[in-house]
Amino acid sequence: MSKNTDELFKNVISHAKEYGFVFQSSEIYDGLSAVYDYGQNGAELKNNIKTYWWKAMVQMHENIVGIDSAIFMHPKIWKASGHVDGFNDPMIDNKDSKKRYRADQLIEEKIAKYDGENKTDLAEKLQHDMDEALKADDLPRLREIIIEHDIKCPISGTMNWTEVRQFNLMFSTQFGAMAEGSEEVYLRPETAQGIFVNFLNVQKSGRMKIPFGIAQIGKAFRNEVIARQFIIRMREFEQMEMQFFIRPGTQQEWYEYWKIARLKWHVALGTDPAKYQYHDHAKLAHYATAAVDIEYEFPFGFKEVEGIHSRGNFDLSQHQEFSGKKMQYFDPEVDPETGKPYGNYIPYVIETSIGLDRMFLLTMMNAYEEEDLSTEERQDSRTVLRLPPVLAPVKAAIFPLTKKDGLPEKAREIMDKLKLEYNVQYEEKDAIGKRYRRQDAIGTPICITVDHQSLEDNTVTIRHRDSMAQERVLADDLSKILGDLVSWKTVLG
Amino acid sequence: MSKNTDELFKNVISHAKEYGFVFQSSEIYDGLSAVYDYGQNGAELKNNIKTYWWKAMVQMHENIVGIDSAIFMHPKIWKASGHVDGFNDPMIDNKDSKKRYRADQLIEEKIAKYDGENKTDLAEKLQHDMDEALKADDLPRLREIIIEHDIKCPISGTMNWTEVRQFNLMFSTQFGAMAEGSEEVYLRPETAQGIFVNFLNVQKSGRMKIPFGIAQIGKAFRNEVIARQFIIRMREFEQMEMQFFIRPGTQQEWYEYWKIARLKWHVALGTDPAKYQYHDHAKLAHYATAAVDIEYEFPFGFKEVEGIHSRGNFDLSQHQEFSGKKMQYFDPEVDPETGKPYGNYIPYVIETSIGLDRMFLLTMMNAYEEEDLSTEERQDSRTVLRLPPVLAPVKAAIFPLTKKDGLPEKAREIMDKLKLEYNVQYEEKDAIGKRYRRQDAIGTPICITVDHQSLEDNTVTIRHRDSMAQERVLADDLSKILGDLVSWKTVLG
Repeated sequence: MSKNTDELFKNVISHAKEYGFVFQSSEIYDGLSAVYDYGQNGAELKNNIKTYWWKAMVQMHENIVGIDSAIFMHPKIWKASGHVDGFNDPMIDNKDSKKRYRADQLIEEKIAKYDGENKTDLAEKLQHDMDEALKADDLPRLREIIIEHDIKCPISGTMNWTEVRQFNLMFSTQFGAMAEGSEEVYLRPETAQGIFVNFLNVQKSGRMKIPFGIAQIGKAFRNEVIARQFIIRMREFEQMEMQFFIRPGTQQEWYEYWKIARLKWHVALGTDPAKYQYHDHAKLAHYATAAVDIEYEFPFGFKEVEGIHSRGNFDLSQHQEFSGKKMQYFDPEVDPETGKPYGNYIPYVIETSIGLDRMFLLTMMNAYEEEDLSTEERQDSRTVLRLPPVLAPVKAAIFPLTKKDGLPEKAREIMDKLKLEYNVQYEEKDAIGKRYRRQDAIGTPICITVDHQSLEDNTVTIRHRDSMAQERVLADDLSKILGDLVSWKTVLG
Repeated sequence: MSKNTDELFKNVISHAKEYGFVFQSSEIYDGLSAVYDYGQNGAELKNNIKTYWWKAMVQMHENIVGIDSAIFMHPKIWKASGHVDGFNDPMIDNKDSKKRYRADQLIEEKIAKYDGENKTDLAEKLQHDMDEALKADDLPRLREIIIEHDIKCPISGTMNWTEVRQFNLMFSTQFGAMAEGSEEVYLRPETAQGIFVNFLNVQKSGRMKIPFGIAQIGKAFRNEVIARQFIIRMREFEQMEMQFFIRPGTQQEWYEYWKIARLKWHVALGTDPAKYQYHDHAKLAHYATAAVDIEYEFPFGFKEVEGIHSRGNFDLSQHQEFSGKKMQYFDPEVDPETGKPYGNYIPYVIETSIGLDRMFLLTMMNAYEEEDLSTEERQDSRTVLRLPPVLAPVKAAIFPLTKKDGLPEKAREIMDKLKLEYNVQYEEKDAIGKRYRRQDAIGTPICITVDHQSLEDNTVTIRHRDSMAQERVLADDLSKILGDLVSWKTVLG
């Protein structure tokens, strides 16, 4: 990360705090590692991103419905999904510093060091050795590699390492208080399984016909050992996932469909398409037959924001096996090849999975601009969040020019009408210019100023965030003007 | 609960499952006790209730903002709030059956039994003794009372009881994986503390002036020993809470304000006001100086749906003490008595706290009707959910009269316009009458039928859910008709 991009990232983080978007969790208690709270503007922005996703996925698709399953699920589900046995990080402890590290991350840091010293051969060999060991799940070999390449603890500086052990990333808790022993329950590490176990309930009660999708937005939890980069990797995060159930054999077609559809969703917000790229997975998860990430160019490089995965029938098959319930669908459509109905089968699944918090950060980063407004006469600048109007936390701010002569009353009269439909803000403190700047900083698309003329002819001044252009309009037209500007049609149409 | 109301409750629960409102969590794994999932119609209804609350509290109030704080919080917060030491249930084990019970509930069952046997004196004495013991936190005395009144384990039938012990209702988990020991972290048992610890961040970054409120919707978790009555008491549930920060001395005024305002919010949905009552708390929580419940008449009696609490400055004072940070506000307003600014103080708080899941159940119960439509000629009935249109999961259903002659195409053309703004559903299977019934069952306010005449003059038939009346309208007017029907203005205005 260059100095400039590093600084930009830092500036966005401090802007996010200063203007009520993101606070460190439990800040007055010196914080809780890798957990963040959304402030008054962040909560609105996050809700608007959720709404955009939900509308685009559920409301716009005749064959997609949304559910809201609980965070707590039966522990057997995570056995079936593979998370109890396979959702691990390889950990190693240094006996002198008593610090614990992820073995693969220690090695990756060494590879980066080799690269920095132009020892390309060594870097490539180390990468290759590690990949082989991880693929074979060979923990002793991982330790050997660490020793061979002279990797020391950054704290103690020694190589007094323990064995490498697997550390499960799921949080667990005790359920109930029965005298005969309570039950261990996990906090879900992903929302997807809540969809799979409800597949039959939704299909039957909703009379869904394949192909159809089930969408869900919700919290998930991972006990990340090394959580970092602000809200990029948190222990508590939010996902927006959709599982699309299809006829076996159609997976390539639907995989391509969703790959394109999901990128469109991002770009419809007005983001420069050059900021996005696809990244095909070379190494696939155990359940996947094809997988691609949609990556966004953060200041620290391209990072995954969304994944599209062709999951085959892995999850439903596992739940059929572990629950003993048939996870099948009867397809009455006639197969043109056999002339008979397709009949009973376990559907295949295409998943689209987006990290809401990353999407939030992407939106902030993409909108943030420190704009130089200097003229020959004087230096000037502003920080502006060029958020898509549909996502802006506050849709319009209403200012009386001064605090007297009945202007506040007139301004509030206008606000009382608008607030029935839009999240609007009233502000009367400080000079108009200062008030504009504060609204620019939170991304409010328009500011409405009420002055003495307003009392005479019922007109107001609208000032646009991006162009800073002003125009005089009838107060009675505001609802329509704002409605057009922030309508979901602008991004869904 | 009489047989009729018991049956009504059972019918609503099975209706909720059959029509995709509420499923038992992890049902294919035989369920997870006291946890439920919201299905495709339940998720929409729940989201609409959230939106109604958020709009009424945040959007309509100039001085209330909303946040979204994490479920994980610093463990010291729960020490400060009193939950680590005080959020307990008194438990007792039977040594023969190995079953654990809440001591107070065992006693309450005995009181009910005395009442059933018309032993009013004994019932009153037992109630009094228990109240005294609970108030004094006297656990040995609770055990004595159980023995004195000959209370036996319902399983073993013996009185071979252990001591009474306190059982904390918070779920805990281990955070991080540091070699030197990980940290115990709780799942928040209420969303309120997420607001209190962010008080300064929000006040400063949002330039809030007292009186002002911070609102939040989110999950909370309690390890209920005896969870019951469907979604009335769950281990994972959702709260909608607002903390209103005020100048000390104004608490009575604001308490009364919110008491009235919150009941209005409920009644604005069109619910019969006679279904609601206030219930003043005689016994106050340690933090409260006044408290009232808004109760709704469920089939099993009046139950709390929302609480309004005057919390004094208990929470902010505790956090000031435990965090060492000043939780104060500087009030520049001039006190008319002293002629000086009020200056620095720890604000007082009025809380409004509503259980979203209970509100959901209330809404379902209140809307559910098994309507007799029999005439002299034939018996007929329907199950209809008379939901307020703003809360209905699906706003309109669009039917082609038949599956041919271009009617599906015309119906979809209409739908494609409406779906940009509203959650609408397309259905072409079965006779129109059957399709009406299915939409009645999920509370869809209007059904739109496209017939052959539609192709000629662009009119459609609208059929209203409640009256079952039909009218012919122009297809181009549908957006406006629907807009007026489901506008938030109908409940916020």
